[in-house]
Amino acid sequence: MTASSQARLRCYDCGCTYDHGDRTRCSCGEPLWFDLDVDEFEWPTETAQATEQDPATTGIWRYDAVLPVSAPETTTLPPGSTPLVRAGALDSFAGCELHLKPEGQNPTGSFKDRGTAVGVAHALDTDTDWIGTVSHGNMALSTSAYAAAAGLECTVFVPADIPPERLDLLARHDPHIFRVEGEYGRLYEETLALDTDGDAGITFVNSDTPLRVAGQKTIAYELLEQFRLESPNAPSSPGVPSSSTASTASTAPDAIVLPVSSGGQASGVWKALRELTRSGVLAADDVPRLYFVQAAPCDPIATAFREGREEVMPIDADETIAVSIANSDPPSGTRALTAARDTDGAVVAVPDEATREAMDRLATDAGLAVEPSSAVALAGVRELSDRGEIAADELVVTILTGSGYKESVETEPRSRHIDLADLEHELASVVES
Amino acid sequence: MTASSQARLRCYDCGCTYDHGDRTRCSCGEPLWFDLDVDEFEWPTETAQATEQDPATTGIWRYDAVLPVSAPETTTLPPGSTPLVRAGALDSFAGCELHLKPEGQNPTGSFKDRGTAVGVAHALDTDTDWIGTVSHGNMALSTSAYAAAAGLECTVFVPADIPPERLDLLARHDPHIFRVEGEYGRLYEETLALDTDGDAGITFVNSDTPLRVAGQKTIAYELLEQFRLESPNAPSSPGVPSSSTASTASTAPDAIVLPVSSGGQASGVWKALRELTRSGVLAADDVPRLYFVQAAPCDPIATAFREGREEVMPIDADETIAVSIANSDPPSGTRALTAARDTDGAVVAVPDEATREAMDRLATDAGLAVEPSSAVALAGVRELSDRGEIAADELVVTILTGSGYKESVETEPRSRHIDLADLEHELASVVES
Ligand SMILES: [Zn+2]
Ligand SMILES: [Zn+2]
Repeated sequence: MTASSQARLRCYDCGCTYDHGDRTRCSCGEPLWFDLDVDEFEWPTETAQATEQDPATTGIWRYDAVLPVSAPETTTLPPGSTPLVRAGALDSFAGCELHLKPEGQNPTGSFKDRGTAVGVAHALDTDTDWIGTVSHGNMALSTSAYAAAAGLECTVFVPADIPPERLDLLARHDPHIFRVEGEYGRLYEETLALDTDGDAGITFVNSDTPLRVAGQKTIAYELLEQFRLESPNAPSSPGVPSSSTASTASTAPDAIVLPVSSGGQASGVWKALRELTRSGVLAADDVPRLYFVQAAPCDPIATAFREGREEVMPIDADETIAVSIANSDPPSGTRALTAARDTDGAVVAVPDEATREAMDRLATDAGLAVEPSSAVALAGVRELSDRGEIAADELVVTILTGSGYKESVETEPRSRHIDLADLEHELASVVES
Repeated sequence: MTASSQARLRCYDCGCTYDHGDRTRCSCGEPLWFDLDVDEFEWPTETAQATEQDPATTGIWRYDAVLPVSAPETTTLPPGSTPLVRAGALDSFAGCELHLKPEGQNPTGSFKDRGTAVGVAHALDTDTDWIGTVSHGNMALSTSAYAAAAGLECTVFVPADIPPERLDLLARHDPHIFRVEGEYGRLYEETLALDTDGDAGITFVNSDTPLRVAGQKTIAYELLEQFRLESPNAPSSPGVPSSSTASTASTAPDAIVLPVSSGGQASGVWKALRELTRSGVLAADDVPRLYFVQAAPCDPIATAFREGREEVMPIDADETIAVSIANSDPPSGTRALTAARDTDGAVVAVPDEATREAMDRLATDAGLAVEPSSAVALAGVRELSDRGEIAADELVVTILTGSGYKESVETEPRSRHIDLADLEHELASVVES
């Protein structure tokens, strides 16, 4: 474990290093990563107990050797340890052997809990009383809930025109909510500047800040460990604790597919692959291709990928049902672009119609209710299979970033209105048809 | 593992036994339990892997030795393995040493997934294509989702006047929804009668049917195993796999507190305690007291307890915010009453105001957004402490049955409307105050 006070930040691009707390962006403009000694990493050999409360063996803290902070002593919201599940019923729709990582089973219903937990642990570690974020969705909810659980004060910056249902969701945890008039996109960088000054007295854990990215990368560590344990070709079969010799062998999926918005999560997954390769736990040949998916109405990263550009530029976006990932000026967009190219993956965009269909199929064929911003990932897999970029016999892990229960979705429910007296008759007409 | 085809049902009251499939109620009127050989049960010694997909070591299937069916080969919705968490920040509110079991982290956001999974496994095992339930809340959602995941057809019976949001939630998984005119309460028994006839061709997994109760009892197995592993007095400390000698010793909480509606979950928890005592895993002296909590506007079981009656009678109920547990004629009410008395516990009712306060404290002090029907349990703990039934140094596990994300709750959000230009100034005025 590395104490956060000693952790350094490094620019992956120009190599500059900084003390943590000095800044979240390199002088070259790129977002910074924690620079930790990962050379000695091996898969943990402790097997996890049925209890999720043992931080050393379950959840994100299972990988504390590669995190900049250690687990808080206790929490009511243990993050991570979401299942990795096989979704064979969707193979033909997806065009591959589909595995799903439903991150909606985190305590506040989304993947954001991983990074939030690391930010909160850092705040507790450094006696910072305040934590903050710029978000009106999953990240805002996650940060508000974790701050409440840890006894920290929390500021959340939302757009002035936030819908009342979203405000209600956040308000349950009683953060200090600021509804901001003005260009909401600029706020992201302005809060980070305040943080760096140290004047604000608040640790901002925005979506691609080093602390959050460190937490978000545990999705990749976790799914790769689970895949290795579950794969029929894996060196150790399920139920058998992995031996230390097995821990250097690796079985990895062919591809990992996830939605991309700010690029923070993409950055985390790529960093995890780089670390695992560097430590020798993942063979260079086994590195999964990374595919990132955007909604076509707001696709600055996919546009840059398609056009072969080196950098992601802001775009004028249209409305999309995938509101949680509608970021027209993604701060880590270039990072995501680079990660896709580096791993022989791609960045693609899918129309809302395809997202709706994928969301529907997840609910009806896998029992998983996800938000549109998660369903884009499955729509992306289908698109990539159609293009021949993903083959039918390839093993693909799709990250479903958030639960669908936090947003109401209007359906056209197919239902029958019957009288109790006609129960048996009505039922028979359906079952026997 | 006992094959479901061989499992027998037994009446705990009169001792009659029946084949499974013959009926769900004894001829004396009492709901039936599965009669399994539990004499040899010990805590599993396999430690769980990080993967949740290994059915033998995690989730409800960790306890398959005491379930009437075994795990299906694969599922996208692995139930159970919810955390057990210590909520010290709420000790003074609760009046005891508070532990929480947030069941909202199950795949569909509630405790119902445990019983649903057992029902679905049984249907798959017996080649039944249809599964059904009578519910318009958590149980309906859980059954619809699990049926979708398992490729089964599903019927859900809801009241004709179900709110559209609830219908939308169910409709995502595309079950056959019947909106029933007539006395909704009667429907529960009428569907079970159809099931018993075998004419309907549908396995009904209503809230206190034997299959569901068998799944629901795993909450108690799981929390007792977690408590034992986590307790400072436990024979094996966290991270150390339990030895077989340790597995016969026990450390249990002083009390378990949960909401009660039909009485099905209460029945399951009590059955678990009886089984664990019988197998010698839980010493008779260590059996936790069981407390069940109702909303005061609809409290038939608490009324019977208060009045010292032997049986629960239907009541004329008022409206309550705890809609999910508003059952004025609970089919396993007498079972719950008996369980509370048998364990030196109680059944209490709390006013909606106390439920609102408990819900608020869970969100602001533990970061947990739960539905009102879960918050009643914490309000009940506070009430019991006030009465002196629970002491300040007692260890209490409170079961939070469902997530609060599926219901919108109107709050009066405290928020500030600011201009981006005033960011630094506005922030300072809050942080420094
Ligand atoms: Zn740089
Ligand atoms: Zn009987």
